[in-house]
Amino acid sequence: MDLRRREFAALMLGGAAVLSLAGHAVAESDPLASWNPGPAKDAIVKFVHATTDAGSPNFVPLAERIATFDQDGTLWVEHPIYTQIVFAFDRVPQVVKERPELADEPAFKAVLSGDRELIASLSMEELLSLVGATLTGMDVETYRDEVSAWIKDARDPRWKRPFTELVYQPQIELLKYLRANGYRTYIVTGGGQDFVRAYAEPVYGIPVEQVVGTMFELRFEPGADGKPIIKREPKLLLNDDKAGKPEGIHLVIGRRPRFAFGNTPGDQQMLEYTTAGPGARLGMLVLHDDGVREYAYGPARGLPDSKIGTFPQGLYDLATKDGWIVVSMKNDWKRIFAFE
Amino acid sequence: MDLRRREFAALMLGGAAVLSLAGHAVAESDPLASWNPGPAKDAIVKFVHATTDAGSPNFVPLAERIATFDQDGTLWVEHPIYTQIVFAFDRVPQVVKERPELADEPAFKAVLSGDRELIASLSMEELLSLVGATLTGMDVETYRDEVSAWIKDARDPRWKRPFTELVYQPQIELLKYLRANGYRTYIVTGGGQDFVRAYAEPVYGIPVEQVVGTMFELRFEPGADGKPIIKREPKLLLNDDKAGKPEGIHLVIGRRPRFAFGNTPGDQQMLEYTTAGPGARLGMLVLHDDGVREYAYGPARGLPDSKIGTFPQGLYDLATKDGWIVVSMKNDWKRIFAFE
Repeated sequence: MDLRRREFAALMLGGAAVLSLAGHAVAESDPLASWNPGPAKDAIVKFVHATTDAGSPNFVPLAERIATFDQDGTLWVEHPIYTQIVFAFDRVPQVVKERPELADEPAFKAVLSGDRELIASLSMEELLSLVGATLTGMDVETYRDEVSAWIKDARDPRWKRPFTELVYQPQIELLKYLRANGYRTYIVTGGGQDFVRAYAEPVYGIPVEQVVGTMFELRFEPGADGKPIIKREPKLLLNDDKAGKPEGIHLVIGRRPRFAFGNTPGDQQMLEYTTAGPGARLGMLVLHDDGVREYAYGPARGLPDSKIGTFPQGLYDLATKDGWIVVSMKNDWKRIFAFE
Repeated sequence: MDLRRREFAALMLGGAAVLSLAGHAVAESDPLASWNPGPAKDAIVKFVHATTDAGSPNFVPLAERIATFDQDGTLWVEHPIYTQIVFAFDRVPQVVKERPELADEPAFKAVLSGDRELIASLSMEELLSLVGATLTGMDVETYRDEVSAWIKDARDPRWKRPFTELVYQPQIELLKYLRANGYRTYIVTGGGQDFVRAYAEPVYGIPVEQVVGTMFELRFEPGADGKPIIKREPKLLLNDDKAGKPEGIHLVIGRRPRFAFGNTPGDQQMLEYTTAGPGARLGMLVLHDDGVREYAYGPARGLPDSKIGTFPQGLYDLATKDGWIVVSMKNDWKRIFAFE
C-alpha cells in the first residue's frame, strides 16, 4: 500500500487515525532506521535534500553525485586487525612452501610461530611487506577466486561470524539511501583494490568498477595455457591512503566527490578534497566509542595509540574547522550490526 | 509517427504501399545507418543479439557488458599527428616562457622553429617527452579547463574544422547502439586520460569515469589559495598502450571487456585480453584504406611505415587467427563524418 492510499484510507477513519497511521508509515519507511535522531542523521538528510531538489540552489546534477567511503572502520570492523591482513596470514604457509626463503623474514617468522605477542609487535611496514609478498604473484582472476573462497569460510574471532557480516547496518542503509537519490557510491580504501572487489557487490551493493584501493603493478603476459593473463606484481603502484586517496579518486573516477565518509587520519585528505570544492559538500567521520557493541579505540578516547584506527585530537580539530560531522557509534547508531 | 501507426496507415492504402512504407521505416530506424551491409556490420548485430537475448546460450548479464574503444584512429582521425600532440605544440611558447631552459631541447627547438621537416623528423620518444613537459605541472582542474578551451578553437588543417567534428559517424552510431543494448562504453586510449576526459562526454557520450588512458603521477598538495589541489607530475604512472591497455582496464574497470575495437598494434593486447575470455566476445580493427575520404596508411596498404597508425601484416595474421573483424573504412563505412 502506498502512502497516498494509506492516507486516503486513514482519512475515511477520522482525524486521530490519520495522525497515527501517517506516523507509522513514516517510521516504517525511514531509509535510515538504524540511525538515532540527532545532528549526524539530520546532516545526511539535509545534504541529500539540498543536492537532489531541482529547485535548490545547491542542486547537484546526477553525473556529479559521487559519494566515497573508506572501508576498514567505516563500513566494517577493522579491529583488532584489518581483514586483509588476516587473509595474508592465512596464506603464509602456502606461500612459504612455494618460496621457502621467506620463512626467515621477521613477519613470516612471527606468523609461522603463531606467537600472538610476536605478531602484535610487528610494525605496519613489516605487515605491509608481508601483504605484498603473499597477495601478489598470481593473476588477477585467480586472486579474486581465492579471496572469494577464503572470505566465505573465515570467521572473526570475537563474533564467530564471517567478516562480511561485520558490516555496519547504518552504513548499509546510508549507501542505499544515497543510491536511491542518484548518488553513485564508491569504496576508497587503503586496502587492496582487488581484495575488496572480490566481495563488494554482494556485501555493499558496490560493483567492482566502483572500488578504488591500493593498487599493485600489473603485468599482462601469456599464462600457462598460452592465454593472456594479468599478473599481480609485488610492487606498489598506488598506496591508496592519505594523499593517495584523492589521487586514486582522480585516476579511477575523475570527479571530485560531493560526500565522503572516513574514520581515521588516513581519510583526512579525501575529506579535505571533497569538502574544499564549491557547492554543497559533506564530510563525515566514524568515531569508535562503543566498547560494548563494537570497540572503543584511539587516543581521543583516552586509550593508548594503536596501529589501526587512531582518531587523534588533530582530526577533531580539522573536523570542527571544516564542518565535518563526527558520528558517535555509541550515540548515533541505534543498531550496529544486522544480526543484533 | 511510430511504426505501428505507420503500418496501420499503410494497410489502409493497400498491399504495395505496405511493403514500400515498411521498407522505408526499417531503413530510417537502422541504428547503424552509416555502416554498409557486409560481414563487419553483421558481426556487430549478431554479437549484440547473442549477448543480450536472455534465451541465448551466450547471454551476458548487464553488469558484464563492457565495450572498450581505442580513440586515435578508431573513434576519430589520428593523421597526420595525434590531436594531443598538436595541443602540446600549441602550449610550447607558454611553457618555454615559464621554463626558458626547455628551449634548448630538440623537440622544443623544432616546434619553436616552425620548421615542418624538422618537426616531422622528431622521434616518438622526443614527442612524448615534449608531451610530458608541456602537459604536466598544473592541477587537474586547470588542465581540464585548458584542454576544453583549446579544443573549442583548434582546427584540423585539412578539413578546417574542430578536431571534435572529425569523429567517425559509424562509430558514434556503434557506441549508441551498444549503450542502447546495455553495454557500458569505455575509451581506452594511449593518449592522456585527462586530455580525453575534457571532451569525451559531449563528443562521445562517454562520462569521465569511463575514460582509461595514459596516467601521469598525481600529487595532492595545498594550492596557491591554501585549498588542496591535485597536481599533474611529469612522471608516467601508466603508459596505456600495448600491454598497458589491459592493465589500465583492470585498474579502472576491473572486468574483462566483451567487445574491443582498435586500429593498430597498440590495441593488440586489449583485443587479445578481450577475446581470450569465455563466452561470446568480439574484437574489431579499423583499417585506414580510404585515401579519398580520410587517409590510407600503414605498410599493409603498400605505404611506407609511419610513426602513427601502422597496420602491419602481423596484425592481419593475428586478426585472422583470433577471429577479429577488420573493418575497411572504404568498403564498410557508408559515411565517415557527420558533416559529409
